[in-house]
Amino acid sequence: MLMVSKERLEEKIAAFSHFGDNGRGGITRLSLSQPALEARRELIERCRKMGMDVKTDDLGNIYALRKGTEELPALIMGSHLDSVVDGGNYDGVLGVLTGLEVIETLHSSQTSTRHPAGVMVWTNEEGARFDPAMMCSGIVTGKFDKESMMNSADKNGIRFGDALAASGFVGSESNRLNPKDYAGYLELHIEQGPVLEIEGKEIGVVEGVVGMVNYEFTVLGVSDHAGTTPQKTRKDALYGASKLILRLWEELEQIDEALVFTMGRMNVLPNVHTVIPNEVKFTLDARHKDPEIIQKVVDVIEELPDHVASCEIRYDKLWGRDTVLFDEQFVKAIQGAANELNYSSRKIYSGAGHDAQYVAGYLPSGMIFVPSAQGHSHCSEEFTPIELVEKGTNVMLKTLLELDRQ
Amino acid sequence: MLMVSKERLEEKIAAFSHFGDNGRGGITRLSLSQPALEARRELIERCRKMGMDVKTDDLGNIYALRKGTEELPALIMGSHLDSVVDGGNYDGVLGVLTGLEVIETLHSSQTSTRHPAGVMVWTNEEGARFDPAMMCSGIVTGKFDKESMMNSADKNGIRFGDALAASGFVGSESNRLNPKDYAGYLELHIEQGPVLEIEGKEIGVVEGVVGMVNYEFTVLGVSDHAGTTPQKTRKDALYGASKLILRLWEELEQIDEALVFTMGRMNVLPNVHTVIPNEVKFTLDARHKDPEIIQKVVDVIEELPDHVASCEIRYDKLWGRDTVLFDEQFVKAIQGAANELNYSSRKIYSGAGHDAQYVAGYLPSGMIFVPSAQGHSHCSEEFTPIELVEKGTNVMLKTLLELDRQ
Repeated sequence: MLMVSKERLEEKIAAFSHFGDNGRGGITRLSLSQPALEARRELIERCRKMGMDVKTDDLGNIYALRKGTEELPALIMGSHLDSVVDGGNYDGVLGVLTGLEVIETLHSSQTSTRHPAGVMVWTNEEGARFDPAMMCSGIVTGKFDKESMMNSADKNGIRFGDALAASGFVGSESNRLNPKDYAGYLELHIEQGPVLEIEGKEIGVVEGVVGMVNYEFTVLGVSDHAGTTPQKTRKDALYGASKLILRLWEELEQIDEALVFTMGRMNVLPNVHTVIPNEVKFTLDARHKDPEIIQKVVDVIEELPDHVASCEIRYDKLWGRDTVLFDEQFVKAIQGAANELNYSSRKIYSGAGHDAQYVAGYLPSGMIFVPSAQGHSHCSEEFTPIELVEKGTNVMLKTLLELDRQ
Repeated sequence: MLMVSKERLEEKIAAFSHFGDNGRGGITRLSLSQPALEARRELIERCRKMGMDVKTDDLGNIYALRKGTEELPALIMGSHLDSVVDGGNYDGVLGVLTGLEVIETLHSSQTSTRHPAGVMVWTNEEGARFDPAMMCSGIVTGKFDKESMMNSADKNGIRFGDALAASGFVGSESNRLNPKDYAGYLELHIEQGPVLEIEGKEIGVVEGVVGMVNYEFTVLGVSDHAGTTPQKTRKDALYGASKLILRLWEELEQIDEALVFTMGRMNVLPNVHTVIPNEVKFTLDARHKDPEIIQKVVDVIEELPDHVASCEIRYDKLWGRDTVLFDEQFVKAIQGAANELNYSSRKIYSGAGHDAQYVAGYLPSGMIFVPSAQGHSHCSEEFTPIELVEKGTNVMLKTLLELDRQ
């Protein structure tokens, strides 16, 4: 049976870890930064060495294809090469490098496929430099408007459009991923959570990406001097926000075991140690695959009292997304590959967003998860043992060959 | 009986409200900024018009003296002309302008005093541009080291020493307030709290400045992806911090009714809406005149558990101060003046810090409070009705004349 090479995978991960190396085991490789451009050039060089045809589209997305034996649309594997600040060597890059390894395995064994097969790179998946995340898969699949995305600026005021133009990676819009020229999209990714590791599973067969809602709460108090305002007359917005957070935890915890929710961002005003806070804003992110559970979260929020600790509560829904399901044939092919290879696996939903979720409504798509050690992601400690990377890549190879037969 | 002029006080407050007018009823007059320098020049011009001798010391503190009839050390009244960002027209400036009105009352009625009598301005009381607060009274009275204070930089990197040198207000170190040349210091200030207003008192006879402790707490969790980490395995530092804040409130509230405590500053890391917070830092400021109560606060902190919601708790004592008592003779003179004038008054402790607290250990000193409408301070809404300003100024005049006789 055709199998990928663990040694080659190890070499690829090590080689790409130099681009943006933060010296602490991780990388900072923001979209279109110098290290990100170097990583792209290295990928293209490796693809061209195998005689692949490399193109970019008007968003700098890279498509590298190996010829097929028939006039069929292509099967393409991919993910992204950009990272968050102090990210790791697995999130995103692994989907590109394992795709490359699948092609290299076909190439070195002179195995032909009916469909052209290839590897691709999405520009600006993380959104860590240019908001929002999954920007360019969103544009290609019609979720975002290109012109407004071009104006997204980084913290130094550099527009995405200008950074893209300067990158040297702009190609033709006609090269974009599209349902006529492409038959399917596969993305291997780290789980970014602890479930596979805790359950001792080697492969996650991803059924979909869970739906979510995102709210911003504002608690409004009154700023007064910390030394002169009697405790009983205060309207302390941070005290109110602390009470509100605990109330939300208590109520949301009871809804469903699989519901995840996070208050990740909080800003306090005026944020001076001698002044009673008059305004606290914090976000709530809640995710579950079942829309009815998400509705229960919304119900909890809508039934909140107007005030907490004499402070007014306001909230805004920032955004939400419905659960996205991957193509049934693709899910079946991935599951079948894992079974045939005798790898332990489980069906799983992705809690995080991925380019594949946008592609899913556009082309038949599927995702393969490999375990994240201790569930870590978006940090230097991100890690997946090479044996599990190898197994995930074998699943992707086998899935690709199965889809190629269909 | 010699009385101050309400109309002149009104004119002074209106005139000085132009220096740094924020257009919303308040001022931004950061230390040594252009508006602050303009306010200083206006004050000096008014003092010189009355024939006062004006000097500055090496820290830009201004001393304006009217001659006495005997060779005695001076009695001086004062406060500061700088404000916080979007501060009001009363905090600090009122102590300077009421001092000026006392001198103007003596001058216009050709009333002589045995001691030289005058008005002074402390440089950088607020610490809003150059940390710390009460910087120059602290240097003069030996609390702070001059050289390190000169290196305190504002957010644009401008050193205090350089801003001072450029101000044109640097004089000789020998001009500093000192116990040989000065017999006493009086400071009129707004209460910055609601107690006088709530109790319907016109004058606060300040007995001292309450002691305080200031801590910084750190709650340490683990950052993981908001969408992929099951709720039960999380170590969410913001959830932990919210629990810790409520626990501290519950325990501290029970210690004493007059204890005030504030968590005013909180910073969350990484502060991204899709990432579980791994570190939350917040401050606790607690104040009470009785050292035993402050010790109870320290006991509550030292008896905290090591962990909250699976997150480690750490804390550092940032600083503290003991309760400062004003000179008994001065307190008695202020109380006597209020009684003679038939103004309602109460003894009170200051919760906020003032230049007078540093001067208290250096020269005989006293403070007079006038009410703050709704307790507001450090905001554009800061307000004291002119009738109460007038009464406070009459108390200062009468106190000065009484101290002059002694």
